[in-house]
Order: sequence, then C-alpha cells, then structure tokens
Amino acid sequence: MGRRSGGDDAAERGTVVTPSAEFPALSPEELAALGRIGERWRSPARPGQELPVDPTLGRSRRGPAPSRFGRLAPIEMFTVEEPDELCATEPAHAPRTRLGRGLGRLRRAVIGPPLSSAAVLYERMRKLVALPILSSDLLSSVAYGPEAMLTVLVLGGSGALGLSLPLAVLLVVLMIAVGASYRQTIPAYPHGAGSYIVAGDNLGRTPGLAAAAGLMLDYVLTVSVSVAAGVHAVTSALPGLRPVTVPLGVLVIAVLLAGNLRGVRTAGNIFVLPTYAFVVAVLAVLVVGYLRAAGRGFAPVPPPQVPAAEGLGLLLILRAFASGAVSMTGIEAVSNAVPAFRPTEWRNARTTLGWMVGMLVVVFAGLIVLIHLNGLVPRPGETILSQLGRLTFPSGPWYGLLQAATALILLLAANTAFNDFPRLLFFMARDGHAPRRFLHMGDRLAFSNGLVALATVAALIFVAFGGRTESLIPLYAVGVFLAFTLSQAGMVVHWRRRRGAGWRYRLILNATGATLSALVLLTAAVAKFAEGAWVVVVAVPLLVFVFDRIHRHYATLHRALALHPPPAGAGAAQRPPPAEGQELPQQVRHLVIVPVARLNLASLRALAYAASLGQPTLAVHIAPEDEEADRFREEWRAWGDHVRLEIIVSPYRAVTGPLAHYLDALHASRPELTLTVIVPEVVLRRRWHRPLHSRVDQRLRTALRALPGVVVTSVPVHLSE
Amino acid sequence: MGRRSGGDDAAERGTVVTPSAEFPALSPEELAALGRIGERWRSPARPGQELPVDPTLGRSRRGPAPSRFGRLAPIEMFTVEEPDELCATEPAHAPRTRLGRGLGRLRRAVIGPPLSSAAVLYERMRKLVALPILSSDLLSSVAYGPEAMLTVLVLGGSGALGLSLPLAVLLVVLMIAVGASYRQTIPAYPHGAGSYIVAGDNLGRTPGLAAAAGLMLDYVLTVSVSVAAGVHAVTSALPGLRPVTVPLGVLVIAVLLAGNLRGVRTAGNIFVLPTYAFVVAVLAVLVVGYLRAAGRGFAPVPPPQVPAAEGLGLLLILRAFASGAVSMTGIEAVSNAVPAFRPTEWRNARTTLGWMVGMLVVVFAGLIVLIHLNGLVPRPGETILSQLGRLTFPSGPWYGLLQAATALILLLAANTAFNDFPRLLFFMARDGHAPRRFLHMGDRLAFSNGLVALATVAALIFVAFGGRTESLIPLYAVGVFLAFTLSQAGMVVHWRRRRGAGWRYRLILNATGATLSALVLLTAAVAKFAEGAWVVVVAVPLLVFVFDRIHRHYATLHRALALHPPPAGAGAAQRPPPAEGQELPQQVRHLVIVPVARLNLASLRALAYAASLGQPTLAVHIAPEDEEADRFREEWRAWGDHVRLEIIVSPYRAVTGPLAHYLDALHASRPELTLTVIVPEVVLRRRWHRPLHSRVDQRLRTALRALPGVVVTSVPVHLSE
Repeated sequence: MGRRSGGDDAAERGTVVTPSAEFPALSPEELAALGRIGERWRSPARPGQELPVDPTLGRSRRGPAPSRFGRLAPIEMFTVEEPDELCATEPAHAPRTRLGRGLGRLRRAVIGPPLSSAAVLYERMRKLVALPILSSDLLSSVAYGPEAMLTVLVLGGSGALGLSLPLAVLLVVLMIAVGASYRQTIPAYPHGAGSYIVAGDNLGRTPGLAAAAGLMLDYVLTVSVSVAAGVHAVTSALPGLRPVTVPLGVLVIAVLLAGNLRGVRTAGNIFVLPTYAFVVAVLAVLVVGYLRAAGRGFAPVPPPQVPAAEGLGLLLILRAFASGAVSMTGIEAVSNAVPAFRPTEWRNARTTLGWMVGMLVVVFAGLIVLIHLNGLVPRPGETILSQLGRLTFPSGPWYGLLQAATALILLLAANTAFNDFPRLLFFMARDGHAPRRFLHMGDRLAFSNGLVALATVAALIFVAFGGRTESLIPLYAVGVFLAFTLSQAGMVVHWRRRRGAGWRYRLILNATGATLSALVLLTAAVAKFAEGAWVVVVAVPLLVFVFDRIHRHYATLHRALALHPPPAGAGAAQRPPPAEGQELPQQVRHLVIVPVARLNLASLRALAYAASLGQPTLAVHIAPEDEEADRFREEWRAWGDHVRLEIIVSPYRAVTGPLAHYLDALHASRPELTLTVIVPEVVLRRRWHRPLHSRVDQRLRTALRALPGVVVTSVPVHLSE
Repeated sequence: MGRRSGGDDAAERGTVVTPSAEFPALSPEELAALGRIGERWRSPARPGQELPVDPTLGRSRRGPAPSRFGRLAPIEMFTVEEPDELCATEPAHAPRTRLGRGLGRLRRAVIGPPLSSAAVLYERMRKLVALPILSSDLLSSVAYGPEAMLTVLVLGGSGALGLSLPLAVLLVVLMIAVGASYRQTIPAYPHGAGSYIVAGDNLGRTPGLAAAAGLMLDYVLTVSVSVAAGVHAVTSALPGLRPVTVPLGVLVIAVLLAGNLRGVRTAGNIFVLPTYAFVVAVLAVLVVGYLRAAGRGFAPVPPPQVPAAEGLGLLLILRAFASGAVSMTGIEAVSNAVPAFRPTEWRNARTTLGWMVGMLVVVFAGLIVLIHLNGLVPRPGETILSQLGRLTFPSGPWYGLLQAATALILLLAANTAFNDFPRLLFFMARDGHAPRRFLHMGDRLAFSNGLVALATVAALIFVAFGGRTESLIPLYAVGVFLAFTLSQAGMVVHWRRRRGAGWRYRLILNATGATLSALVLLTAAVAKFAEGAWVVVVAVPLLVFVFDRIHRHYATLHRALALHPPPAGAGAAQRPPPAEGQELPQQVRHLVIVPVARLNLASLRALAYAASLGQPTLAVHIAPEDEEADRFREEWRAWGDHVRLEIIVSPYRAVTGPLAHYLDALHASRPELTLTVIVPEVVLRRRWHRPLHSRVDQRLRTALRALPGVVVTSVPVHLSE
C-alpha cells in the first residue's frame, strides 16, 4: 500500500492520529524542486513593497489594537507566539453572522466548547479497564446471537430446536479458533492490527480495501443491530414502548452521535460499569437457572409445539449457523487497540483477548444450553434473554436489572463503532482512499465528518428495516466474516514471508482461522443471500470500486500539482509558457478585463480597482441592441473614456455566453496572457433580496471556471442598509 | 408613480416593450456627476499600457483568427460592427459544456432558434382581427359563467332556478355599465389603459399595486379556470377522458407555455378561427333552441326535482350573482391593447369594445333564458352548455363542433393571460415593483421568466383544486372586480382633475361602473369568503406588501450606487476615504494576501500571480499545531522566503474563521487599504470529484463576502485529466 513505502516509519504512524495529517509534509524530492524554483523567482522590485500594515496587528505593542467594529474587535483574538506567528484564540473562531452565533451557542451547549489540538491524549488502559471497554462489542453479541440462531431453527418446527446444541458446539470451536488466530496477530502488529492494515499489508491493496469495506459495513451494522437489540431489550421489559421502536432507536443514535461529537474523554471510566453489570447479571441467570435445572435432574422442559414453516433442510441449518455466528462479532476489537494498553502492550492485549474469548464461550454455551433446558422458543415482541430472565427471576428487581444491563452494554457496543469507524476512515483518507475531509478533526478533536456519516447511514438502515434485529442479522454476518477472513489470510502470508520461530505452527493456526471464517462467510453469503445478504455482496465490490476511483483522483491531483525542478536554462528569452504553467512572477503577462453593465458606483469602483493595478485594462460592455450600445458609448465618453472600451452587441440578449466566448477567443489568440476578469459584486444584506438580482457575477464565475488562464476577481460593494 | 415623473415622455413609453429596459439610461444629473468624476480620474501611467492583444480579435483582418480549441474557435462567433464594437453571432451563444449543448438542442427543438432583438414587431390589427383575438377572454367566459351561477342557485332546490332570469337582468345591466365605463377609458388613455396604470396614475401607488395584484391573480386564475372549463368541455363530450382531467389540464398548460416561449408571432391569424367558430356555434344553438321553444309556445319545461341543500336566503342569491359575474371577465382586454389597433386607434378600439359587449349580452342572456326554457339543471360530469348542445343537436356533427369550439376559445382565453401577465410584470419591474429579471427578454423575445412563473402558479392551482371549475370560480371573481373597481375609480379622479368637455357626464358614468363593480367585489368577497375568496382577500394585501418591499430594496440599491459629483477640493492630501468609497485609481492602496495551505503548483501559481501585480504582498498560513507551523516555515525557507509569511496557529483547527477574523483585524487597523485575497482554486473536471475536496476556496469566499474592502481573486488551475 502506498503509505507503507516509508517502511518502519510508516508502520510507526500506523495508529497515530494527528490533526496535522491534513497538511502532509513535502517529500525530499519536492523540497529540492521547491528550492530550485525559488532560486529563479524574481518579483518586480517596486517602491512601497514594504507592507503598509503590521501583520502582527500591533499585538507586540501594549494595549488593545484600534478597532471600528465593537465586539468583532481583534482584541484578544490573536496572541503573538513568535515573530511572524500568531495564535488564534477562541473568539477568533466565533461565527460572524447573528444566525451563526446563535447556532454556535446551541452547538456549544450540546457538544461543548472547542478543544485545542494540544489536548489529543494518548490514554493507556489497565487490563481491568480495557477488558470491559473492548469486550462490550463482543459480549453484547450474545444478547442477539443465540436468539438469531433459534429464530431460524424454529422455522423448521419446535423439533428442530434441539439442533441448537450441536450448532453451539460448532460455534464454540469457531470462536476458539478465530480467537487463537487473533491472539497471534497481536504480537505481530504491536502498533495496531486492523483488518484493513493487515490485509492491505500482506495481501495487497484490493484485499485491504475489501477488508475496509467489510469493516465499514460491520461498523454501520453494529450500530443498527446493537441499537435495535438494545431497544428490543427495553421494549421486552416495557411493552408499552413497542410502538415507538423506530423513533426511540433514532433518538438513541442521535444521542450517541452527540456524545461522540463531544468526545468520549468526557465520559471516562463510566464505560466500565455496563459490561461488568451485564456479565454479573448473565452469570446470575446462569447460576440460578442451572441450580433450578439441577433440582429437576436436568430434565429438559419440552418446548411448546410450533408448526414447521419450512422443511428442515441443510440450507435452514446453515442459515441458523450463520445467524448464530454473529455472536462473535467484536472479537477483533483488542487487536485494533494494542497501543492503548500499558506496557508491555502486546502481552497485556493478548491476555485480555484470552479472557474475553473465555468469557464469551462460557456465556454463549451456558445460555444456549439453559434455553434448551427451559424449552424456550423465540417470540416476536420479547427477546429470548428477557424470557429467560422472567423465568429465572419471576419477582424482585433482578429481571429489571438484567434488561437494563443488556440495553446498556448494547449501547456501549454501538459506541465502539462510533470510536472505530471514523478512525478507519481517517486511515483510509490518509492513504487517499476516502475523501480528505475525514482527516479533519472537528473543534472537539473528534472526527466529526466520520461520526455524522456513520450516524446518518446507521439511522437510515435502522429506519429502513423498521428497527427489527432479526431483519438486520443476515446483512451483518457477511461484512464481519469478510474482514475476519481477509485479516487472517493476511497473517498466513505474513508468517510465510517472515518465517520467525515456530512460523509453521502459527501459519497453520491462522490458516485454520481463515478457513473457518471463510466457510462462515460463504455460508452466510449463500444461505442468506435472498434475505438481505445480497446487499452486502453488492456493496463490498461497489465500495472497493469507489475507494479505488477516489485513490486515482487524488493520485492524479497530486501528480498534477507536484513540484518539479524547472527545466535547465529556461530563460525569459524562450517562448513563454501558457498562462497556467507560469510559476514565476516575471513570466506572468496581464490583461485586465472589466465587464461593465451600467455605469454606477459599483462599476466605477471596479474600474478604479482595475486601473490601480497598473496593468493593461480593457472594459467590455454587452449590449442587447445597437441603440443601447450607442447610448452606452455616449455615457462612456461623458465619463472621459479613460479605459479602452469594447462593446459586444448580443442580439439574442444573452450576457454570460458571449462574454465567455469572447474571453476564450482572446485566450486562444494569446495563450500566454493571464486574463483577470474584475466583476463588481453588490453584497446584499438580506437573503430574501437575492431573487431580486440576476446574480450575473455568480453566473459569470460559473461560466468562466472552465476557461484556462482566466482569473476572476470580485470587487464587493456592501450596501449599508 | 415613480416612472411618471418624466411627464408625457413617460406616458409615451407606457406600453413600449424593449430589451434595452434592462439597461436604463443615466439621468442627466448622474451624467453630469460622471463627467466630474472622470475629470479627476488618473490611472498610473506605466509602460505596456497598450493592450497586448487586439480586442477586435483580428476580425478586421481577413481570414480566421488563430485558435487552439477546434470547434470552440472564435471563427464566425463575432463580427466587427464598427471600431470597438463586435456583434455576437449565434455560435457565441452556444453553451460550453456537453450537457449544456445537448439541452440547448432539445430547447431549440421545442421552442425554436433564438430571435434577434431587431425582430421585435409592432403589429397593428384590423378590427375584424382584433375583435376575435381580444374578445376570446370575454366571450369564453359564457362557457362557465351561467353554469357557475346555476350551480349555486340549484343548492336552493330546483324552485330557485327561476331566479336566474332576474339575476341575468341585473348582470346585463352590470355588463353595460362596466362596458360603457371602459369605453370612456379608451380615448383618455390612448397608449394603453391597464388597471395598474390607470389606478396608479390617478389614485396613487398603493391602489395601483392593489390593481396589479388583482390583475395578476386574475391572469393566473384565467389560465386555471379556462383550462379547467376547456378540459370539462372535452370530457363532457368524451366521458372516457374524465379520470385524466388533472394530467390533461397540466399538459395543456405545458403546451401553452411552450407555445408562448416560442413566441406567438409564429401562430399569426390562426387565433381568429376559434372565436368566430364559437360565436357561430352558440348562435346556432340559440336560433335552433328558440325556434323549437317557439314551436311549443315558449312554455318552459319544468326542471327535474332537486331537493334544496340549503335555505334560499339572501346570501345564496348574492353568491349566485357573484358567480354569474365571472361571465364578464376579460372585458378590460381592449382598453389594455389600444395601441395595437390601426389609426385612429382609440376610435377603432372603442367601436370594437362596443361590439364585444353587445355580443356578450346577446349570448349571455340568450343562453340563460334558453336554459330556463329547457329546464336544464347543472350536473357534475357534464357542462350545462354541453347538455344544451346535446338537446339542440341530438344527432350530426354539430354537437361535437360546439364542444370543440368551446374548448378552443377557452384555450385562446388562457393564451390571452400568457400574453398579458408577463407584460404586466415587465411594466411592474420597470417601475421597480417586481424582480428585475422580468425585464429580461429570452432568446425568443418572449418574457420567459414571466411565462414560466405564470404557468407554474396556474398549474399548481389547477392541481390543488383538482381541475374543478366550480371550485375555482369563488377565487376568480374577487381579483377581477378589484381591478375593475380600481381602474374605474381611477377614471373618476381622472375626470375630476382634467375637467374636459362633458366631464360631469363622464364622471357619473365611470362612478356608476366603479360603484357597481365595488358592489360585486364586496358581494364576492363576503358571500364567498369561506368558499375560497379568503385566499384572494389575503393574497392581495400580501402581494402589495411584497411589491412595496421590492420597490424599497431597489430604491435603496439605486441610492447606494448612484453617482454623485465628487466633493469640491477633495485632494489626495486629505484623509483617504475607506476602501469601498474609493472611486479613483490613485486613491486605491493595495495589500495582497495569499492564503497558502501547502506548497504545490497551485499555491506557487497564486503566489507568482500575486507577486506579478507588484503590490505589497503577505502570505498567510493557517496551522493546526505548532509542529506543523514549524515544518511549514522550514519549507517556506527552502523555497527562498520571497514573500513575507505570517503563520496563524489555529489550535481549534478551523481555517476560514480565523482567516476572516484576521483580515477583519487588518481592515480595522487600516480601513483605507483594499485587501485582495488571492485564492488558488483547483478546477475539477468531474462533478463527482467535488465531495472529495473541502472546497476551502468557496467557504473562504462565503466567509469573506461580508467583509468590507476585501476583494477575492480566484486563480484557477485546471486539471488536464
């Protein structure tokens, strides 16, 4: 991948997030070319070249600078850092319009005051803190994974529910294999091992982009699914809220967005609680449930008779398996976040991952078996975990606590995606695979653009699927297992290349993980194709295509704007380059054009501005009729004919078209001229006045944009009332 | 009214429509001021002030000018008219983009090739041609007027239908009174006597605007009502088309719009036919109908029993009267169009009006009585004229011809509004009461903006009312009679002021017309208030308010941009005026600012452009962090530090805000400086590339628009691929 070219240095910045990424440094070659260009640069020496104003705004002096503008005063807006360097303080970011200031206050109330770049923190986590934060995504999956599997199985009738036990065994094997596979990734990528990075590093650009596409869908669906399941946990306990499922979910997403726009640092260790509460609550359900089952000698309660909706075939079983596999989404979280651990980072991270997988296996297997023993069947309207909770704690506050903890951990899991999605986009944008705006850190140091994009797409999907978890599951599995497969296949290549100690053993372990993940991926894509997986099967290649086209565009742009050393001996005697190829002041030849519609203060100001530049100047008037042309020429002569005037009669009454063609013709006859079109622009004070003006200046600017070598200058005249 | 200040000259241009109206001439005072300003204008004399290019594009020479651009070549785009004057030919109006050229071809296919300004025609009409064209609006009203009256009456039960005869007598009196009143207006306003002009002239600005608002609503509703009635005439004959009433009507409006965008001249005398056909068909119905009625001794056929839906009170009768009064809409058409007649214009126009009113009275009264004799009752689904036609011509093609002629004359009436509405807007825009864009004649010499506005509003109203004529009628009467009342009240004032021969008699005649119209207006507004008239009662004052605000804005603008002679003795020694008050080149003091985000070809080109202007130049870089600031300064030094650089550290990472505030602070410290901000702008070749760029240049331009004395210059760099 492009960014890897710098070797270890590039690997080092793999997970470093900095606001300076928007301003990449010049390469050494470009720096050298810049120096060569600079040597030949000569600006025409003229009297008065000294600046007519102090660029430090007189801040080096004592006392406030003079100001005409009351509260828009420069006072305290800028402080002098060193000679030629000012630092903007908070007031310098204040919006300038009244509406803008009002919105700014609202914004500040919701997401807080701006944070300085210096506030970027690199917090390190203890294992006991890291475990709950990083495992929320993984553990919360058991809130909907088992249910998703049983929901499919019950389609084959209540008799098919017994298949949940062998399927659970298979899934536990899968969890352990994938977990072991990821354990190995951690020491190999101590700077963070997102699937995008691992797959891109080892398999090439396109698999890396495919992994990124899979991950992006994964993050979006994590939000949609977790919020759907969380709302379902709440409506299971409080059925009265069921009709407002969709607005409730959108509200939750909006709150998550606002919280993340504020920046997560403000919340701190509060995130530890829901995970521990959820684990304790589920363990309590398991202990009480198994004690009660032991009381009746572990005899399973027969489930209520449910007629089979479809035949119990292989396809149904595969679909159930693929649905159950969503229980392990989030297993990759630790490997992404290695640098966030305390030293020795990779060792602590690996231990945490081991605990997490162990906990997942216990909770997942325990729940599946207990559900089987109690003969529970998925019901619309109430989650199976809620049914189990009601059965286990028929009275007392315990049931309510279980549901609350479930909802909270799901919220936390959705929040994880809000952390990871904008970071992924940041890394992709740094490589030129995503729009550069995702490099920009908002004034709260959060990647606001990525957060808003995630919340918007997740909310749209949530609404489109009516907030029903079971409808979203088929989409979910494919993206997740695509990222798993590519990441682990990448590790296989990694070991084959590096051949460190015990590389064969490691390779086999990762190969197993990759193969199993690929099988689940295939199962999910094929078995659930018609149910919604096709969306993902279509979206991933489409996204890869878009990422690739974006990369191409940025590469083109970078090539076009790159600095090259000037050709040797290119003196002024040679044929001049065309206008836009001129890099040196002494090469630029001017012709200033002033379109004049009528003679008034605005056009006279534009003419005065043009003349004061001291360059050859031509005024152009577009007349609809000969009579008008004659009248205008008389007025021009009354003024004194100070500027050469050319009148273009436009018998079809269009203005911008003939003017653009005229400039094009001028350019064609002398391509080395830089044509500066000076347009007077009356700045209106009220928005509703705009339709009252034909906005020729804007239409002209649009028409002239396409012309090479044409510079457009707007000379404003502000209305005072 | 403002425009009347010029006296007779202004009255003369009352109805002259010219494309030069967009470019009003300077007043003598302004012309004098312009000369005074010109005397003091001194542009800095510099070598190379001769133009580096021939502004006539070498067209004075033989052979085509050189070109790099193939078919965008200047060849044949411009012809030389006289020295310093070019004439753009048709190719110079061709759109520059491929999409634009495609749309241009489509446009040409639908509305025809552009027409030169020289093609404005002032056709004069013979009476036999003028009569049908101008009377279509008036005569077509009998296609829905009698029915509208009977539809209300029948609500009082079939017994109430007998009241149609006394009401018809009242309406005939009204028609004759208003007709006589308008007959007097014609010689008094031989240059055209639109209600807007007559009311504005004699009663003042606000009544004039109220008349204009009423007329505008009248024109819009003429289209909606005529199209609705025309479609109804068609669906009465062909009931199968009834379900597509609304799409059919919208299609008709679209065809009318396209036809009028082409320009009516292409159609010529074809407009004479429908009116004569309609008159002949209706007269045939009357003759055959009365002969048949004579055969049974004029004994009325009793109407079928219809139960009363509401009590037969005064209100019902008044509503029926107001509805019937719409039969006389269009009576004002002749007085608007006096100059279109052959000499002696006013005499011919007056004669034509007399004939028209006579024909209206005969047809209207004849139809009402015949309907009564035949005991017809309004039915949904079939017009009463269609019922009468079927009864009169049970077999043969006559019934079909009647319906076709009715539909065609209604179409013609709608077309009248397409003629008059944009002209009204043109006159209003010339007085500054409507947006100036309504002054612009499109490339077919039609007022395209006004036509599109009319078609859009009429189609919206048509759709909103489901294309049902009877729902539209209550809105219709109020606007029409408001214009009638104000126009005739204006004539009363006119006679009182002029006091010519027999002025008392004329005054009484006009006063009678005004009073009767005012009574109908009041009746319609009150009796039909709840049925829809409230829309008009609200809309008229609202429109007057809007017209007034528009006028105020243009007046402010005109005052702000008006030329004033420079104050005596204002030499350079005095304190310099603030930047935007500088009208003379020698007053302008420059500071050129180049915001540089990173050093590449685009920013170097901007710097070279800035330096080549030879004015004091300052480069500004906005850095998100101190580290980035230091790195940028190093790169700047590697280049050679040719331009003074000021770095602004923006710790909250905003770019445009701090830059705008910095410029504001510079401006505050030296308000006489003109700050020219030179922004490099990468011009993208594809629209979908736009979201990939943060478009700082555009955001900067928006942010800087509000700052006084800041000129923004875009230096483009075009990507070649």
